[in-house]
Amino acid sequence: MLENSGRTELSTLGEFGLIDHLSKSIQLHQPSTIKGIGDDAAVIDAENKYQLISTDIFVEGTHFDLSYTPLMHLGYKSIVTNISDIVAMNGKATHVLVSIALSNRFSLEAVEDLYKGMITACNLYGVDLIGGDTSSSQKGLIINVTCYGEVAKDKVCYRSGCKPGDLVVVSGDLGAAYLGLHILEREKRIYLEKPDFQPDLEGNDYLIQRQLRPEARIDIIKMLDEIGVTPTSMMDISDGLSSELHHIAKQSNVGFTIYEDKLPMDPIAYQRAIDLGIDPTVAMLNGGEDYELLFTVPIAEYDKIKKEMEITIIGHAVEAGEGLHLISKSDIKHKLTAQGWSHV
Amino acid sequence: MLENSGRTELSTLGEFGLIDHLSKSIQLHQPSTIKGIGDDAAVIDAENKYQLISTDIFVEGTHFDLSYTPLMHLGYKSIVTNISDIVAMNGKATHVLVSIALSNRFSLEAVEDLYKGMITACNLYGVDLIGGDTSSSQKGLIINVTCYGEVAKDKVCYRSGCKPGDLVVVSGDLGAAYLGLHILEREKRIYLEKPDFQPDLEGNDYLIQRQLRPEARIDIIKMLDEIGVTPTSMMDISDGLSSELHHIAKQSNVGFTIYEDKLPMDPIAYQRAIDLGIDPTVAMLNGGEDYELLFTVPIAEYDKIKKEMEITIIGHAVEAGEGLHLISKSDIKHKLTAQGWSHV
Repeated sequence: MLENSGRTELSTLGEFGLIDHLSKSIQLHQPSTIKGIGDDAAVIDAENKYQLISTDIFVEGTHFDLSYTPLMHLGYKSIVTNISDIVAMNGKATHVLVSIALSNRFSLEAVEDLYKGMITACNLYGVDLIGGDTSSSQKGLIINVTCYGEVAKDKVCYRSGCKPGDLVVVSGDLGAAYLGLHILEREKRIYLEKPDFQPDLEGNDYLIQRQLRPEARIDIIKMLDEIGVTPTSMMDISDGLSSELHHIAKQSNVGFTIYEDKLPMDPIAYQRAIDLGIDPTVAMLNGGEDYELLFTVPIAEYDKIKKEMEITIIGHAVEAGEGLHLISKSDIKHKLTAQGWSHV
Repeated sequence: MLENSGRTELSTLGEFGLIDHLSKSIQLHQPSTIKGIGDDAAVIDAENKYQLISTDIFVEGTHFDLSYTPLMHLGYKSIVTNISDIVAMNGKATHVLVSIALSNRFSLEAVEDLYKGMITACNLYGVDLIGGDTSSSQKGLIINVTCYGEVAKDKVCYRSGCKPGDLVVVSGDLGAAYLGLHILEREKRIYLEKPDFQPDLEGNDYLIQRQLRPEARIDIIKMLDEIGVTPTSMMDISDGLSSELHHIAKQSNVGFTIYEDKLPMDPIAYQRAIDLGIDPTVAMLNGGEDYELLFTVPIAEYDKIKKEMEITIIGHAVEAGEGLHLISKSDIKHKLTAQGWSHV
């Protein structure tokens, strides 16, 4: 028995378990609530369209390390990753609100750098910063961003609409942000041991940029609209491809078969992964933070998407009972877990 | 010279100075943005109505002390004070999103208590909890609440619409939440010195309730709507009456004359203030956290509001050049500063 038998450690549930647990007791009162907790953003009926809202908290020491993250990049990333949540609903972000809490170790100049990054992102994405709150904290920097947007009612994409037979598609390339983080962490460790050491980041520009300055794929949403394709389900890849596939599988009640040789990786990233002794497939499946889009489309739409250069078909949805699998380059079927893949 | 001449301490600006400073570089892109930073909530055009959004961060050690704040009350208060921001725009809150970051000192049961309070508030106010985020923190508990609501376009109340001659009105009574905090802090100090001490909170129920479990005055908004009065300006009193009067004065370009003998205080609170050696007027002017409404109405509306029991006329707006003053019970004119009042 535990010393305090009334105490359950949060670590026994994990983040998604905690959210599931707490969500159970929520009652809804507003007829305008279309979708509450459980997708990239909440959906509210606004007569001729849907409004989308998403909120994210970024905590120093948990989500970022200021020893290698410039505050301007952090500000930029905190806005972009929230815009990405709205994009993942097939929507357009329009407004953000920002709360920050910070200890007295931060100067005005530091806060200015943080806001410069936020405002750069807002200007680039045409999003208005319309509100916020500032406070002191006992320790470290905490940022909360709420992003607000909209989507046409017939265009909204949930995690729940995928059907067996649908094609599984990802935008851009995967794994680079993870490798960028790996390199930054490695240079930090060396620096801590030898403070006169100059970090060697040469040749890693793309990887580090993917980690420190991700973008939201508004171009993909626009392209899909132009070719007349509405995904049956969509998410942005923040936690990792495997984890996101499991979310869609659960909410759509499907399984997935993914092909290792179809997974898209930047050639430089691939080579760096090999150099670093990291399995490129692991980086693509588990890495996360690339903020690419993962979506599914009916196979009947194949002709419309096949020529698009910025997206890759990586597999297809199957019946839920068939489960989630990765077919390796050597044609061996591996079970795909939320944290990656394992031998069947 | 400072050792690091490029460093400006945040404390030299204060919260409002910092917000003013950072807001200057914000550009707006969305034609739907009616009001950005600078009021109780942001205002977005939604064709046949306005949408309102407000966000607030609550940090352990800055905004609350868990040694005397039950988590259920904290959850309740975090929701209610955000609803109050929407009410202060003359609006109706409809949805909330909640982010929490917490250290591993918190158990699942603690988080459940926090959410119980939040959900109790949501159910009481008919507001839907539709999204959020959870994370670990390095130290303490941080809560961010975003509140979403709506208001008819001809009913929205900013801080900027007050005109000289308007009556100044407050709802309910003031100063009790401040006295409640004072008593809780006092009992904590005694407890820290003598751990076997039993806190003596008898007779202070009302004061402590005002501090730990405030309410948003949706009844006042409803009453004003029923009697056909739309305030020319409105705020909720979170920082203190003096501070809020200065906000309205600045944004409306007016001054105020307030009468000490009109300021409303609960009789028990008044007596407890005397017992504690606290000037009741100081508690009313500077206390804050009562979450009552402060608003102004044209003098022509006097007949409509004079019979309402839940509100009190405390003074009137004057030309900006006349400044802000308190007329004491002994008819002496004191200058009203953001932090209270001083001799002219």
